[in-house]
Amino acid sequence: MGSVGLVTPQQMHFSASLPLKSGARLSAYTLSYETYGTLNADRSNAVLVCHALNASHHVAGTHADGSVGWWDNLVGPGKALDTRRFFVIGVNNPGSCFGSTGPMHTDPASGRIYGAGFPVMTVEDWVDAQSRLVQQLGITQLAAVIGGSLGGMQALAWALRHPARVRHCIAVATAPNLSAQNIAFNEVARRAIVTDPDFHGGNFYAHGVVPQRGLSVARMLGHITYLSDDAMEAKFGRALKNGCLSYSTQDIEFQIESYLRHQGDKFSHSFDANTYLLITRALDYFDPALAHAGDLAQAFAVARAQRFLIVSFTTDWRFAPSRSREIVKALVDNRIAVSYAEIDAPHGHDAFLLDDARYHAVLRAYFERVASEAEVPR
Amino acid sequence: MGSVGLVTPQQMHFSASLPLKSGARLSAYTLSYETYGTLNADRSNAVLVCHALNASHHVAGTHADGSVGWWDNLVGPGKALDTRRFFVIGVNNPGSCFGSTGPMHTDPASGRIYGAGFPVMTVEDWVDAQSRLVQQLGITQLAAVIGGSLGGMQALAWALRHPARVRHCIAVATAPNLSAQNIAFNEVARRAIVTDPDFHGGNFYAHGVVPQRGLSVARMLGHITYLSDDAMEAKFGRALKNGCLSYSTQDIEFQIESYLRHQGDKFSHSFDANTYLLITRALDYFDPALAHAGDLAQAFAVARAQRFLIVSFTTDWRFAPSRSREIVKALVDNRIAVSYAEIDAPHGHDAFLLDDARYHAVLRAYFERVASEAEVPR
Repeated sequence: MGSVGLVTPQQMHFSASLPLKSGARLSAYTLSYETYGTLNADRSNAVLVCHALNASHHVAGTHADGSVGWWDNLVGPGKALDTRRFFVIGVNNPGSCFGSTGPMHTDPASGRIYGAGFPVMTVEDWVDAQSRLVQQLGITQLAAVIGGSLGGMQALAWALRHPARVRHCIAVATAPNLSAQNIAFNEVARRAIVTDPDFHGGNFYAHGVVPQRGLSVARMLGHITYLSDDAMEAKFGRALKNGCLSYSTQDIEFQIESYLRHQGDKFSHSFDANTYLLITRALDYFDPALAHAGDLAQAFAVARAQRFLIVSFTTDWRFAPSRSREIVKALVDNRIAVSYAEIDAPHGHDAFLLDDARYHAVLRAYFERVASEAEVPR
Repeated sequence: MGSVGLVTPQQMHFSASLPLKSGARLSAYTLSYETYGTLNADRSNAVLVCHALNASHHVAGTHADGSVGWWDNLVGPGKALDTRRFFVIGVNNPGSCFGSTGPMHTDPASGRIYGAGFPVMTVEDWVDAQSRLVQQLGITQLAAVIGGSLGGMQALAWALRHPARVRHCIAVATAPNLSAQNIAFNEVARRAIVTDPDFHGGNFYAHGVVPQRGLSVARMLGHITYLSDDAMEAKFGRALKNGCLSYSTQDIEFQIESYLRHQGDKFSHSFDANTYLLITRALDYFDPALAHAGDLAQAFAVARAQRFLIVSFTTDWRFAPSRSREIVKALVDNRIAVSYAEIDAPHGHDAFLLDDARYHAVLRAYFERVASEAEVPR
């Protein structure tokens, strides 16, 4: 198994505005994307990878600056999603902060930086934006669309919004909508950001500052929900930072505090505050059953994919297995073929990014099936 | 069953400084407290109630301003903790913000407001402060000490620190120490507070402001951990605030957001930021097994109470039943009598404050036993 090696991100510009679920439109915009592997002659081997909250189009391989793709353990020659057989596409969603048009860019309509005025995006809007890019690449139908967490929601939305254009839908560690508790965590993170005086109502760019305090708190909180209670206990427990207590309310005493502060600091220097708001809102809004009076089976009645693969992790308390089972049930109710794997992994929600042997074996086997159906040569 | 009626808080001053676990001392201090019922002739019917994070000495009855005690559903004539039989004491811990000496008061040593300089308190320090007050009331031995959550830790600390002075120890919805995840949530809350520019390093009193933004975020986060996922789902689900979506990253869309913001706002106007830091730190520090190389059974070897009652709630994910079972095991290992009730309640951690019939029946039966042993007349 190898790496896809050095990767250079590409950009694609769209001069036609994108109609959004909110009723607004996203003016002319640019998407950053990467591809790995080679599109075959009949263009039947394309796999779209959808990213989650803080990831990007950089799915696999290495950038010139040394940064490795977020799903590099999964995507590459000989890996579970084998780039010798598949043409893999990663797209940075609009509103994000890794190269595609986002709140830090200038609104062509007004000539001013979008800031908090960037249109509110939904999972469906992202899928529509991705769809245009996939079409521009000359791909009529995706062999598969795959994503974890918020990326899993995009994979599901593809199957519902562009049913004929998805042969296989793979949704990992996701949910058919956020629970009240999920929304609550998002809201606390958003309040931390928007009440930071350096947020300036979202127009902090003009002030030459970023709301680091709020972003840091948001990230610390997020981290807690990505890890299982047990994984955090095993990794940190009550271990002290300096070997003994200093009896202070503000200094670091425990290693878990040190870890979280470090993660928060790092994130607050690299992530955009408006993007954080936009992406957590897209999570909140995703709810395909809403238009069907809460009936998820009715929502999935339009799906035409050959098969779905739904994967959950036992210790994921952010998107628990029971939420994945709701999706499986909705598919079964529609007599749609679905494989379901509930992986006994200790890591919590983060497991979808990690190199768990059983998890990757499931994905490898599934992509074997996708490849053999598509008659993609080995 | 009746109420204890109108209650007037009392104060007791201690001119001798209190030695603290940190090595520091709390200078001369005052404690606010309340009592309900009548101390019997042999002073054998006193029950001390220890409060949790944001509660106080106001356990039962009603103040002149109409505020009802936080455990009024439990404490009163004919109630589970029957004030016709028991003399019940509630004490506000030093460092809190409800009348006892705290960070908003003047340090008699320096003549300046304590602020962030208030000495760091531990659960053991609070128990020592309570012990002095109990002694001043002429009570050599408590019939029982009871508390929930952080209050439960104080009840346990009484049994370990003043073994001969506690006949019964009742610890509800608590843990023998905080997990890494528990500490992590506390740390996020503290960071939200101390990074609020209005915190001014803890000396906000001098600036005529309070760190409302940080306190509000801290409280919102706390609330999530007090409720079970299911209870939050049942109460709020994905219900919208205004019946339809407005597609906004900053406006309230979901009722759960509205609820949390309201709780945060209310709290930020009534609670002291330094107290929040002090109390969450006391939670972090509590760890009776630490001095025994992590062996909780060894820690409990000194306990002399006639019996313990440990109560947990099935849906409490802040202090899960497994944590209570660790305490039960440590007691059993020492051949100390212990009753354990795991209450199947949907409410999460908050259940210890609520009026659950099975829970209150357990407490009622237990206090019957305490009363009959003490030959307290009905």
